[in-house]
Amino acid sequence: MPRPCLDLSVYLVTDRPLSLGRDLADVVAAAVRGGATVVQLREKHCSSREMVELGRALKKVLEPTGVPLIIDDRVDVALAVGADGAHVGQSDMHWRDARRILGPDALLGLTIDHMHEVYEAEEADVDYLGVGPVFATKTHENPAPVWGPEKLAEAVRASRHPVVAIGGVKSHNIKQVLAAKPAGVAVVSAICSADDPESAARDLLRKVQQA
Amino acid sequence: MPRPCLDLSVYLVTDRPLSLGRDLADVVAAAVRGGATVVQLREKHCSSREMVELGRALKKVLEPTGVPLIIDDRVDVALAVGADGAHVGQSDMHWRDARRILGPDALLGLTIDHMHEVYEAEEADVDYLGVGPVFATKTHENPAPVWGPEKLAEAVRASRHPVVAIGGVKSHNIKQVLAAKPAGVAVVSAICSADDPESAARDLLRKVQQA
Repeated sequence: MPRPCLDLSVYLVTDRPLSLGRDLADVVAAAVRGGATVVQLREKHCSSREMVELGRALKKVLEPTGVPLIIDDRVDVALAVGADGAHVGQSDMHWRDARRILGPDALLGLTIDHMHEVYEAEEADVDYLGVGPVFATKTHENPAPVWGPEKLAEAVRASRHPVVAIGGVKSHNIKQVLAAKPAGVAVVSAICSADDPESAARDLLRKVQQA
Repeated sequence: MPRPCLDLSVYLVTDRPLSLGRDLADVVAAAVRGGATVVQLREKHCSSREMVELGRALKKVLEPTGVPLIIDDRVDVALAVGADGAHVGQSDMHWRDARRILGPDALLGLTIDHMHEVYEAEEADVDYLGVGPVFATKTHENPAPVWGPEKLAEAVRASRHPVVAIGGVKSHNIKQVLAAKPAGVAVVSAICSADDPESAARDLLRKVQQA
């Protein structure tokens, strides 16, 4: 199976606690109707069994749409679910191990917390970098230092990889982010906590496409 | 690679917080010198990166000894490290998923919390069952009900799989456990928290062999 075509424009990262008590599969389905182009299952506080179940539920929603499903950190869950790939951070499994386990055709993303990691990642066999937090955010427990749009632009220019901007990106500040010319924006609460996740995703996609 | 020969006599489950500040690889090396026959890396509170590093450190200690290394829960860590297999509990990945990902030659263990799970596990393609807690224990955060030696013996008789008894097993009560005729005993603090892990393992092995 070749790597699915990767449109990083609106990259949804899931968060059940931020989803206002709604079923995660429903939030994801709405986001994809609105135009989310990638979905990452990120769940830091659930059992492996539950994560596999969540992954399978999201796969059922996403498979008919062609929107790729990526699993945060848990490469084994990605394999169990038959997801399109995995995403690893600097304290997760090394991208080299993840790539070896997942095989050459899986999507693999890498979180970048600091500029020197952009340079280190030049040799990495990954499909994109997630760079952030662009702005201050409360979503992450241990946030790295804030990048700001200018340093983000520096990372975009420096890297051979497509860059997804993440961290505090909302409808009201997305223009500043897009000025840095990332391949896309990743959001958590801007969609998960929206009253209407579908129109939130549609609004973000329109802004990305206009940029 | 065929499944390594599995001697379950003294099955060490690691726990860094219970290891009195000692390096885990040193504790494991001492336990194996004393006669531990299997080692499971179990770490519930560390990053994936750190777990891979720990797994590699233990593999380095164990590989020359022939004692198999098994990784708790994290099938991806088992693959990354090149461990001999994995162990899954009832809230971890389903044994079916783990077996599919690990392949037919890996060792795979399954935790049994309740008697009905012994019967459900008859069809499971696993190499052994870990049944417990035999006695009350503080090692686990959410312990299942205590089995006691008689119910343990019932599980041993009922199952086609080798049974490892776990939970509160110490030198002073091991005789009661061995009366149930398990294939071996799994211990955490009886070795990890022993002043001398090597002689603690030796003492346990002697008692298992005498039974």
